[in-house]
Amino acid sequence: MNKDRILLDHGGGGKLSQHLVADLMLPAFDNPLLAALDDGAVFSIDQNRFAFSTDSYVVDPIFFPGGNIGDLAVNGTVNDLSMCGAKPLYLSCAMIVEEGFEIEELKKIVDTMSQAAETAGVQVVTGDTKVVPKGAADKIFINTSGIGLIAPGVNVSGTGAVLGDKIIISGSIADHGMAVMIEREKLAFESAIKSDSMALNHMVQKMLAASPNIHVLRDPTRGGVATTLNEIAAASKVGMTLLEASIFVRPEVAGACELLGFDPLYVANEGKLLAVVADKDAEVVLGTMHQCPAGREATIIGEVTEADSGRVVMQTKIGGTRIVDMMTGEQLPRIC
Amino acid sequence: MNKDRILLDHGGGGKLSQHLVADLMLPAFDNPLLAALDDGAVFSIDQNRFAFSTDSYVVDPIFFPGGNIGDLAVNGTVNDLSMCGAKPLYLSCAMIVEEGFEIEELKKIVDTMSQAAETAGVQVVTGDTKVVPKGAADKIFINTSGIGLIAPGVNVSGTGAVLGDKIIISGSIADHGMAVMIEREKLAFESAIKSDSMALNHMVQKMLAASPNIHVLRDPTRGGVATTLNEIAAASKVGMTLLEASIFVRPEVAGACELLGFDPLYVANEGKLLAVVADKDAEVVLGTMHQCPAGREATIIGEVTEADSGRVVMQTKIGGTRIVDMMTGEQLPRIC
Repeated sequence: MNKDRILLDHGGGGKLSQHLVADLMLPAFDNPLLAALDDGAVFSIDQNRFAFSTDSYVVDPIFFPGGNIGDLAVNGTVNDLSMCGAKPLYLSCAMIVEEGFEIEELKKIVDTMSQAAETAGVQVVTGDTKVVPKGAADKIFINTSGIGLIAPGVNVSGTGAVLGDKIIISGSIADHGMAVMIEREKLAFESAIKSDSMALNHMVQKMLAASPNIHVLRDPTRGGVATTLNEIAAASKVGMTLLEASIFVRPEVAGACELLGFDPLYVANEGKLLAVVADKDAEVVLGTMHQCPAGREATIIGEVTEADSGRVVMQTKIGGTRIVDMMTGEQLPRIC
Repeated sequence: MNKDRILLDHGGGGKLSQHLVADLMLPAFDNPLLAALDDGAVFSIDQNRFAFSTDSYVVDPIFFPGGNIGDLAVNGTVNDLSMCGAKPLYLSCAMIVEEGFEIEELKKIVDTMSQAAETAGVQVVTGDTKVVPKGAADKIFINTSGIGLIAPGVNVSGTGAVLGDKIIISGSIADHGMAVMIEREKLAFESAIKSDSMALNHMVQKMLAASPNIHVLRDPTRGGVATTLNEIAAASKVGMTLLEASIFVRPEVAGACELLGFDPLYVANEGKLLAVVADKDAEVVLGTMHQCPAGREATIIGEVTEADSGRVVMQTKIGGTRIVDMMTGEQLPRIC
C-alpha cells in the first residue's frame, strides 16, 4: 500500500490485487468467512451449508467471439459457487448502464443471460438497474451475486491441497483472454479464437459424486492458471510441479499469445476449472470429467510435490525447470 | 420500449424504470420469485425462508453530508432485506474502481462500510474488486448483495395492503436526495442538510415482534414516497389517501426543494420506511417505532381507502385533493 492511487494492476488478479485485499479489505471486514478467500463465502444455517459469491463484469468489448458480458456474468458466478462445492440455485443481476446505450443491445445481453441461466439450471430472482450519464461508465457493467447449497460430505477449499495430490485441468487454456484481446484490438487472425465461457456446475456435481477426495476446486480466471495455482499453493502451504507438455493450448491461441507477447499460463479462462484431487481418485475424477461436455479435454497437469514451499515450478518441454510466479502486473485489463 | 436508447429516466425508479423491468427483464428471467418485484426475492430451503437482494450504488458525489457511497451501500441492502421482513445476515461487496482513484479515499469508504456493517450487525463475507481504465467509470461504483433470514410467521409483501390499513412513515422525507443534490451542485444553504442514510433492520425486527399484522414494508428510495406508495397501491390493488399535513419535511429541506423546484414526495430517502399496518395494530407499531432511534419521528400519514383503484390521492393542507402519481421522469440521477 505504498502507492497512493489505484492502478489497473490492483484489479488484475495478481500480486497488487492480493495486497489490496490483504492490506485494506481484510482488516476492515475482519471475519473468518471473508478471510478464507475462496471463490465464495461458506456459511451454515441449521443443517444446511450455503455458498455466497459476487462478481462484477466490466469486460471490453461487451460482445466477443464465444459470448458477451451477459453469459459471462451468469457463468462466472455459477462457476464461483461451483468452486465452493455448491450447487448454484439463485442469482441476482445488477446492471449499471450508460445513458444512450442501445436497448436492442441490452435486450441481446439480457436474453443471453436468460439462456445461460437456463443452461446452468439457476434462476435470476432479484435485480437492480442504474443508469449513469453519458461518459460516467463505459457502456454497461453487470454484477451477479449467487447463492448455492453444499451437499453434506463435500469439503473443498483453497487450503485443502496435500502432498501427493494430482492437479487436473478441465481443458485448453487462455481461450477467453485471447478471444477478448483480439476482438478489442480488432486484430485479424486466420482461425477464429472463441471464448470458453461456460457453466461448470453440472460437471462439478458429477465430479463430487464420483469422489469424496476432491480437495480444491478453482476456476483460473483473472491471472490465469499460474496465479490460481500460486494462490492454492500459498493457501494450502504446499509446493506444486507442473508438466508443461501436459498443458493444452490450442495452436491458434498459442500463436496469438506468441505474436502478442502473452504467456498463456497467465491469460484468463472462463469455462475451465483446476481440481486438486487425492492421487488414488485422480483417474476416476478424470474419467468423470471426460464424459462431460465441459471436461472432454481434461488432463492431469501436475501434482503436489512439496509439503510446505508455497511454490509452483514447471518442468518445461525442453527438460528444464522454471518457477511459475504469480502475475505481478495486469496483462489484460477488463478481461471479465 | 418504443425508445431505442437507454435514458437516465430508465434508472430513475419511476415509470420508465418500471417499463424496462416489465418489458425486458421479467419476460427474459421469467420466474415467480422475480415477478413478485419486492425489494428482494424470498425463497425457502427446508424449513427456512430467506431473502436475497442486490443494489449497485453510483451516487455522485461519493462523499456527501451524512454519509458516503460506502455506508449507503451497506445500509441500502440491509434495508432492502429488512423490507422483506428478513433479519439481514451476510453481505457481499463488489467494487468497480476507476484507475487513479486515491487509495486514501478507498480506505475511507471501506472503513465506513465496515462501521455501517457493525452497526447493522451484518458481516461482509465475500467481495470482488475490478479496476477500469481512467474515464471508463466515474470514480467508484459499489454493489452490495445480501442474504437474510425471515422468521416464521412474518409475511410482508408489496401485495399485502388491504382496505382500512394505516400507512406509517418512520420520519421526515427528502433528506437524502436534497443532501446529495446540494453537495453535487455545490450550493450553499444556511442550514446543513444531511442524508438520512441509516440501517433500519433493528427497528424492523422490533416492529415485527410487536405486531403480526404488518402487511407491507418498503423503503422509499429512488422515486421517493410518492413512487413507492404507487407501487404498493398497484401491487395490492388498493387506493390510498394521504394527509399532506402529517408528512414531515424538515424546514431547511422544504426550503431547498422549493428553491430548486423539487417535490419532496418524489425525492429519495435512504433511512426511512413505509409500513402498511392493520388498523387495530397501527398504534402499537407506531409506539414501538417511537422507541427506536430510526423511528422517533414516525407518523401515520394516511390509510388504504379503496379496495381496487390502485390510485394514491392526497388531502392537501389547504383542504383540496390531488392525485399523487408515480414519478414519470428522473428528478435526480445518481442519487444512490
